[in-house]
Amino acid sequence: MKYRIIISFLLLTASLAAIGQEKQSRKSKKTNSAVAEKGLIKVSVMYPFAEGKTFNMEYYETKHMPMVAGFLGSNLVKYTIEKGLANGIPNQPLPYMAIGIFYVKSLADYQAAIAPNRDAIRADFANYTNIVPVILVSEVVR
Amino acid sequence: MKYRIIISFLLLTASLAAIGQEKQSRKSKKTNSAVAEKGLIKVSVMYPFAEGKTFNMEYYETKHMPMVAGFLGSNLVKYTIEKGLANGIPNQPLPYMAIGIFYVKSLADYQAAIAPNRDAIRADFANYTNIVPVILVSEVVR
Repeated sequence: MKYRIIISFLLLTASLAAIGQEKQSRKSKKTNSAVAEKGLIKVSVMYPFAEGKTFNMEYYETKHMPMVAGFLGSNLVKYTIEKGLANGIPNQPLPYMAIGIFYVKSLADYQAAIAPNRDAIRADFANYTNIVPVILVSEVVR
Repeated sequence: MKYRIIISFLLLTASLAAIGQEKQSRKSKKTNSAVAEKGLIKVSVMYPFAEGKTFNMEYYETKHMPMVAGFLGSNLVKYTIEKGLANGIPNQPLPYMAIGIFYVKSLADYQAAIAPNRDAIRADFANYTNIVPVILVSEVVR
């Protein structure tokens, strides 16, 4: 009888521990997807579309972006790449062919990391595009 | 002795279950932060900066964006808001004052949800800005 009580207690403890962990896990996931970007600095490198402009997405994704990301070290939280599909307003031309975005913790650290590598980054442009990009520095507020 | 073996077995099972759950949880978190956006459609509503243009970020964040998000239902994975800080190229004007981004699973569903609410959305513009936005539809490839 004594052992039965011990076994029941152990089972109950294990169940409660498992439930607690599941709750914790769900909470972490929610936080991650909802506010992971908030407060970060976003450097968006946007390539405007125009007649005669070209963009090699495969080179950009496999060579250029990883090279720049490598310069940024632990200041880089993540980077994303998107391919322009259409203008959201019907019958208007595509605004951008592609956008590369670096999410960093510190703008000063980003600038310090890019400065000594600016020539290498610019020299690589010709390998994938003939577009001069627009670069926006912004802060994620939500 | 028999009970001791049972207790040991139960403790072992509980430990293994806890370890398994922890591993699963870490895996999910990693997936969330690293590739959560990949494959999604991004609708970026970008407000260009120019002299005399105004933008009320507080209204945009607390009223306009939640209203539009409400129209999108379960097709909406998340939305973000960013505040333009500077041009990434020194001595160039700020490209955009603000950007609101909807991450959706289906572009067709997005369009179907927005169409019947277009007038309400446009009528709300005057409450926070005098800027005509640029809207880019893109696909997150990385």
